[in-house]
Amino acid sequence: MTAMLWNGWGDPDRATRLPDSVVGLLRELLGVRPDPAPPVPLEDLAPPAPRACARALEEIVGPDHVRTDDEARIRHTRGKSTLDLLRIRAGDARDAPDAVVLPGDHEEILAVLAQCSRERIAVVPFGGGTSVVGGLTAEGESFAGVVALDLRRLDRLTALDAVSRTATLQAGLRGPRAEALLAERGYTLGHYPQSYEWASIGGFAATRSSGQASAGYGRFDEMVAGLTVATPRGTLTLGRAPKSAAGPDLRQLVLGSEGAFGVITDVTARVRPLPEVRRYEGWRFASFAEGTAAVRALAQDGPLPTVLRLSDETETMIGLARPDEIGEANGDGCLAVCGYEGATEEVAGRRAGAHAVLRAHGGNPLGEGPGESWAAGRFSAPYLRDALLDVGALAETLETAGFWSDLPRLEEAVRLTLARELPSSLVMCHISHVYRDGASLYFTVVTAQGDEPLTRWGRAKAAVNDAIIEAGGTISHHHGVGTDHRDRLVDEIGPLGVEMLRAVKDRLDPAGILNPGVLIPPARG
Amino acid sequence: MTAMLWNGWGDPDRATRLPDSVVGLLRELLGVRPDPAPPVPLEDLAPPAPRACARALEEIVGPDHVRTDDEARIRHTRGKSTLDLLRIRAGDARDAPDAVVLPGDHEEILAVLAQCSRERIAVVPFGGGTSVVGGLTAEGESFAGVVALDLRRLDRLTALDAVSRTATLQAGLRGPRAEALLAERGYTLGHYPQSYEWASIGGFAATRSSGQASAGYGRFDEMVAGLTVATPRGTLTLGRAPKSAAGPDLRQLVLGSEGAFGVITDVTARVRPLPEVRRYEGWRFASFAEGTAAVRALAQDGPLPTVLRLSDETETMIGLARPDEIGEANGDGCLAVCGYEGATEEVAGRRAGAHAVLRAHGGNPLGEGPGESWAAGRFSAPYLRDALLDVGALAETLETAGFWSDLPRLEEAVRLTLARELPSSLVMCHISHVYRDGASLYFTVVTAQGDEPLTRWGRAKAAVNDAIIEAGGTISHHHGVGTDHRDRLVDEIGPLGVEMLRAVKDRLDPAGILNPGVLIPPARG
Repeated sequence: MTAMLWNGWGDPDRATRLPDSVVGLLRELLGVRPDPAPPVPLEDLAPPAPRACARALEEIVGPDHVRTDDEARIRHTRGKSTLDLLRIRAGDARDAPDAVVLPGDHEEILAVLAQCSRERIAVVPFGGGTSVVGGLTAEGESFAGVVALDLRRLDRLTALDAVSRTATLQAGLRGPRAEALLAERGYTLGHYPQSYEWASIGGFAATRSSGQASAGYGRFDEMVAGLTVATPRGTLTLGRAPKSAAGPDLRQLVLGSEGAFGVITDVTARVRPLPEVRRYEGWRFASFAEGTAAVRALAQDGPLPTVLRLSDETETMIGLARPDEIGEANGDGCLAVCGYEGATEEVAGRRAGAHAVLRAHGGNPLGEGPGESWAAGRFSAPYLRDALLDVGALAETLETAGFWSDLPRLEEAVRLTLARELPSSLVMCHISHVYRDGASLYFTVVTAQGDEPLTRWGRAKAAVNDAIIEAGGTISHHHGVGTDHRDRLVDEIGPLGVEMLRAVKDRLDPAGILNPGVLIPPARG
Repeated sequence: MTAMLWNGWGDPDRATRLPDSVVGLLRELLGVRPDPAPPVPLEDLAPPAPRACARALEEIVGPDHVRTDDEARIRHTRGKSTLDLLRIRAGDARDAPDAVVLPGDHEEILAVLAQCSRERIAVVPFGGGTSVVGGLTAEGESFAGVVALDLRRLDRLTALDAVSRTATLQAGLRGPRAEALLAERGYTLGHYPQSYEWASIGGFAATRSSGQASAGYGRFDEMVAGLTVATPRGTLTLGRAPKSAAGPDLRQLVLGSEGAFGVITDVTARVRPLPEVRRYEGWRFASFAEGTAAVRALAQDGPLPTVLRLSDETETMIGLARPDEIGEANGDGCLAVCGYEGATEEVAGRRAGAHAVLRAHGGNPLGEGPGESWAAGRFSAPYLRDALLDVGALAETLETAGFWSDLPRLEEAVRLTLARELPSSLVMCHISHVYRDGASLYFTVVTAQGDEPLTRWGRAKAAVNDAIIEAGGTISHHHGVGTDHRDRLVDEIGPLGVEMLRAVKDRLDPAGILNPGVLIPPARG
């Protein structure tokens, strides 16, 4: 398995460079300065001396599965937000864990959590390491140490129930490997977030991940039929039946818990037969409002494509929906990508029905070209971000969701806030996930790094969060809370909601070792 | 508004009588004894003298809205399980609340909960009073009093968002009134549990209710976009967006909480346009296994009817799917009812697709006769139960759900257990709710009351619960936990799961006044 680029995204061999013409435009339009400082090389990084906290853990997982070398620690430092990358590229490895622990199974994880509870060692569950909200940046200062609990050895498909169409997948399985194991048996999850190539099953569950084909396959939280969770207090096994009235649905309390309640060790997921056909097409709408009306009609009255994405005018012009072809001529208006996956006949009927709705709402068909182009580049955007960082630009994304009636106001509030906070920046938006009652909005911002990019972005992000809350949106549709959104959780669920989470955490993790500072704001006073 | 029959089901004017022929068969086949004791009349019931606990509550809701007369107290005693009816018919009103309090709005409920917390008065939230699992039988002995908090005055549609297709409904609205208010605006919830005519919006949410059209409209928990909850610690407002990754979905922690965490005061529900057409049809399958395969094919690969129900051979023979025509000739095999609701064209396509699947799985179409007959009697079964009680029989239902691969074993386990525990009884089963990964099983049992019906049924029910747990099912698919299933919750979610619920309850309801003994097993020791 290729290792993720330690100070950027993905497979180092797939790193990309921007054409000179684009670099020229960035300098001209956004004021990006030439010749930014190159990233600090790995060998020059100096994480703090590790605290000696891993000895007893070696007895649990074996000495081969505890790493305290600098490279292993640096590779488990923070996640993949742009701020994370700026920090590590600048040589800042202060958040490195003291050790990396690689348990082999659920029982070892239980033992690790028990031992760490006794010794007050903070534990950061680590799947694919792709968090973009500081979900791996636990606050470990007051602990005897911090260990990254890397789940990569939990990498098996342990059960497949072809009658019920469920599969039990271990938490450390990454997207492509999980799909390969399922494909051998004729099944798919159909979960393709942008982080798909690197993120893990456990991470999908812990963060309520949502994939590009969510219109057809559902969000990951909707795929979960069962969960096994290792907590400092023992094992939690949930999901005796597809649906139940035996009290609250505790699966939905573990989904989104971001490692603060326990370590998800396997997920029993609802799977589907591999699609016979996949077909992606482009449609053009005159405006974002017109396209939004079309997308809403499909979401509310059907039929729903498997993939449904609508770019705004700027994103369409730039061609961000097709990162491999950025900078090419893209026409005006708004590009929608509509994809269909499934059995041949079913897809034919659904596609014909969707075409009628799209046409009735003013859509112009562009054929398969833009759809295939989107599909080819669907996991490429993070590589583009690295290329932008290399030339001195800052690219970051943020996202929200709201009810349909709030959506125009929400989109405008975020756009105007970004324009105010980051003048001379490029702001693009698309609708990426739709529901009967609302949709998500996904924003991409490109601006110059300037002198203090961390401060500048931090201020803009805070202002956007204010705007989102004020306009009635959620602080995150699918990125999660982590440490970046943690202090806004109270705006989302109220002080009593936060107390509910804290009550559960206190009960399952009395020593507070699990991802301290992630998800749940510390108690006041 | 007609008041519910105090010692039976529904509208007293709709009470029914069994034909002599059926009574004869019950005596002959099940050993039902002639001339059972008639129910004790209301005026002969003597609930315990009420504890004086309501004075301060009068100041909050007004003296007109606090009742301490025997009739009001008796009308709020327990719910509508068969055991509840046997008890009240035998004159046992020991569980009567000390007072009935009828708050006018959310703020009054907050004040009532604060006052009751101070004075240690137990509060039983009361919607339609239709619980069949002891959800209204709180354990109030150690409290200064028990009040039933009747929500009937919270009966308004307070918002309708036609763009997002959501409606905010107050908790005390009963099914038909909620539908009437929505229908005035062109919308429907589509939620039709058997208790529909009497149960309330708040109750639907608090118990994870599931309706007869769940295949098309979803379970009630899937309809909920937002909730307002009054707790002893203040107000909880949930649901900023259709879906979110801002931590665990706390809506799903309130859904199914059965009044133990707080009082749901309104629900923002996902609504749909009123259907243009409704069409219900019957299909016959040679066996339950064959019918199950057809139903599973529809659930997994579609297209899914709006209503989908499959009776086993016994239920088909008896005609229980059509209670208004019980005892008529019903043919052999297994009856499936398939209903379609929606826009004309969409229904036509879906119906044609479902027909092809049903035929391919050996189904024989019976036309609209059995479907219409099912629809006409869809809320009648509880009236039939009263008639059975009147002649000395005992009729009760129980339900579970499991994954498709477990379903045959689960069905057999329950059926054999009932046959063993209650010899000379009639056991009928149907599949009433389907999912991609599994389905529910709903059992109806008719037996003689005999000498000690409470003990006899209690023993049988406990044995069935053992069998369900052993065979991998859930202890309740849609009836809920109440007090009847409470001590089995640990088998469902494990001791740590129970602790999670207890932790939340302790935080939101520190005085423990909310529905004590319901849902959450008391802590040991």
